[in-house]
Amino acid sequence: MPARLAVTMGDINGIGPEVLAQALTMHDASACSLLVIGDADALSAVSASTRDFNRVDDVGAWGSASAPLAIWDAGHIAPTRVPGELSAETGRCAMEWTRAAVELALAGTVDGIVTCPINKEGIRLAGYDCMGHTDFIAELVDAPEYRMSLFAGGLRAVHVSAHVPLAEALRLLTRERVADTIRIAHDGLKRLGIVRGRVAVAGLNPHAGENGMLGHEDREIILPAVDECRAAGIDCTGPLVPDAVFRHMQDGRYDVVVAMYHDQGHVPLKLAAMDEAVNVTLGLPIVRTSVGHGTAYDIAGKGLAKPDSLLAAMDVAARLSNSNVEHAR
Amino acid sequence: MPARLAVTMGDINGIGPEVLAQALTMHDASACSLLVIGDADALSAVSASTRDFNRVDDVGAWGSASAPLAIWDAGHIAPTRVPGELSAETGRCAMEWTRAAVELALAGTVDGIVTCPINKEGIRLAGYDCMGHTDFIAELVDAPEYRMSLFAGGLRAVHVSAHVPLAEALRLLTRERVADTIRIAHDGLKRLGIVRGRVAVAGLNPHAGENGMLGHEDREIILPAVDECRAAGIDCTGPLVPDAVFRHMQDGRYDVVVAMYHDQGHVPLKLAAMDEAVNVTLGLPIVRTSVGHGTAYDIAGKGLAKPDSLLAAMDVAARLSNSNVEHAR
Repeated sequence: MPARLAVTMGDINGIGPEVLAQALTMHDASACSLLVIGDADALSAVSASTRDFNRVDDVGAWGSASAPLAIWDAGHIAPTRVPGELSAETGRCAMEWTRAAVELALAGTVDGIVTCPINKEGIRLAGYDCMGHTDFIAELVDAPEYRMSLFAGGLRAVHVSAHVPLAEALRLLTRERVADTIRIAHDGLKRLGIVRGRVAVAGLNPHAGENGMLGHEDREIILPAVDECRAAGIDCTGPLVPDAVFRHMQDGRYDVVVAMYHDQGHVPLKLAAMDEAVNVTLGLPIVRTSVGHGTAYDIAGKGLAKPDSLLAAMDVAARLSNSNVEHAR
Repeated sequence: MPARLAVTMGDINGIGPEVLAQALTMHDASACSLLVIGDADALSAVSASTRDFNRVDDVGAWGSASAPLAIWDAGHIAPTRVPGELSAETGRCAMEWTRAAVELALAGTVDGIVTCPINKEGIRLAGYDCMGHTDFIAELVDAPEYRMSLFAGGLRAVHVSAHVPLAEALRLLTRERVADTIRIAHDGLKRLGIVRGRVAVAGLNPHAGENGMLGHEDREIILPAVDECRAAGIDCTGPLVPDAVFRHMQDGRYDVVVAMYHDQGHVPLKLAAMDEAVNVTLGLPIVRTSVGHGTAYDIAGKGLAKPDSLLAAMDVAARLSNSNVEHAR
């Protein structure tokens, strides 16, 4: 049975409606039924072919009828789309659509949610007090121990910390936090249907500290966390040399890398496969993926945006939703 | 005229002699004449075809005769090769061969040097008080402001700091040091024959600090350094988002990335092109490149080592040696 996914439109003045309109005509309907939460007019303004989509008022009806594709505004009507224009109101709509998607996921009406990008400045203007989407969602579902993950072209990274200054990432690095991240990464693989997932844990310092000569954290913080998780039955290895471990994952030795800070995972994965990058929030009680790009106001309305990341985000969400199925690795 | 390069054999118990023997039969003789500094017996033990190479006692004669390929032991005879065995004596020979190469470069007998890997444990056993090759060479040529650079498959990174703990890299990040690195990177491009080289300067924090929300160094340290160098006529841009800048270099927008710490440059470049990775020490009065791998004791003697990195190191050294020639970009 196809996974039922809610896809939020994000900030309509960004590229969200453009990538969404393209993705809706290209996505794998056998893998997922989609409920778009957003503004039908913004969508049909960028693509005539979306005018016939099923606009629903009663979401319960969508769920039971399992129409493959429908659009719902969740009671929040956006202003007319002005590509590239910063707006508190489009920011507000984006957040409320997200809230509606989360509620559907918690209620079991959908199996997972996929989010298009919001504009951080826009949501701040609208009065939301959060760094972005992910914090907002984590708060709604009351899950403080989530981890930002990036999946890109077969590579996967789960981050011990995410949107914090690098100096703060060093302070956040504790044995407990690393061990939690290893467990979350391992569970994420299981939800993907990868049994006996192989977790590589990167070191923090150059050469993973070279036996303490290039830093103490690798031996004193990361190694004990790896040992703890191995003792609990997780197939994990580390701390591994950061400038080799991503290559080893690419070669098929590992299924995921636990990265010690945002850029340790993001820099290599986005170089290897930027267009297909998908953000995955692991450690939540619901399935949530997001495109790997932002609103890109600079190219909004110009027909340049590509739907690759959104299609990949739908694909990953569908896989994560079918965790009872055992996929081939 | 081909560049005259001294190639040191490194620790003979590592893979140095193996990659060297292969590279000597494959290198581009029109681009470089090679003087191997090392042990002829170690070389002929791994490859019968190297037995006929010209063993020289008088290096002055090699220079003037410009024989395309010769071997010189610089008065340091190594013990019999035992692949994978840690040895103070092979460590000592590796370092003294390096010293001899540096002296030839300073004297102008060769145009540049290329080094095969040493074993850090071995040189420590032999009583050398340095982190590795690069410090040793920098001390010999009295150049404190050198920068470790990595060239790999068309990508180039010059690092503000190298073999230090990440926490120490944050402490070393000053406006002066970043500006020096930009200048060294720009000069390096010029030596490669790239006129009007385009220097991208990476940020330190996620999203290059996102206007100060994710760290202050990007705005307070890196930006002023970039401004200073632009005012001095260097085509440099930054601080740029770390997880996008390497992709932009790959797309041809920049010729080099100035990386804020070891792994910021090493992680993406080694993922993109590990086999071709070349270490380049910029900021020295001599040309010096090195293979991007170590002694690899675990595979030494097994016929598994590949010469790609050494061949690339020779190629880069030859290009850097011909700085008076203007190459196409």
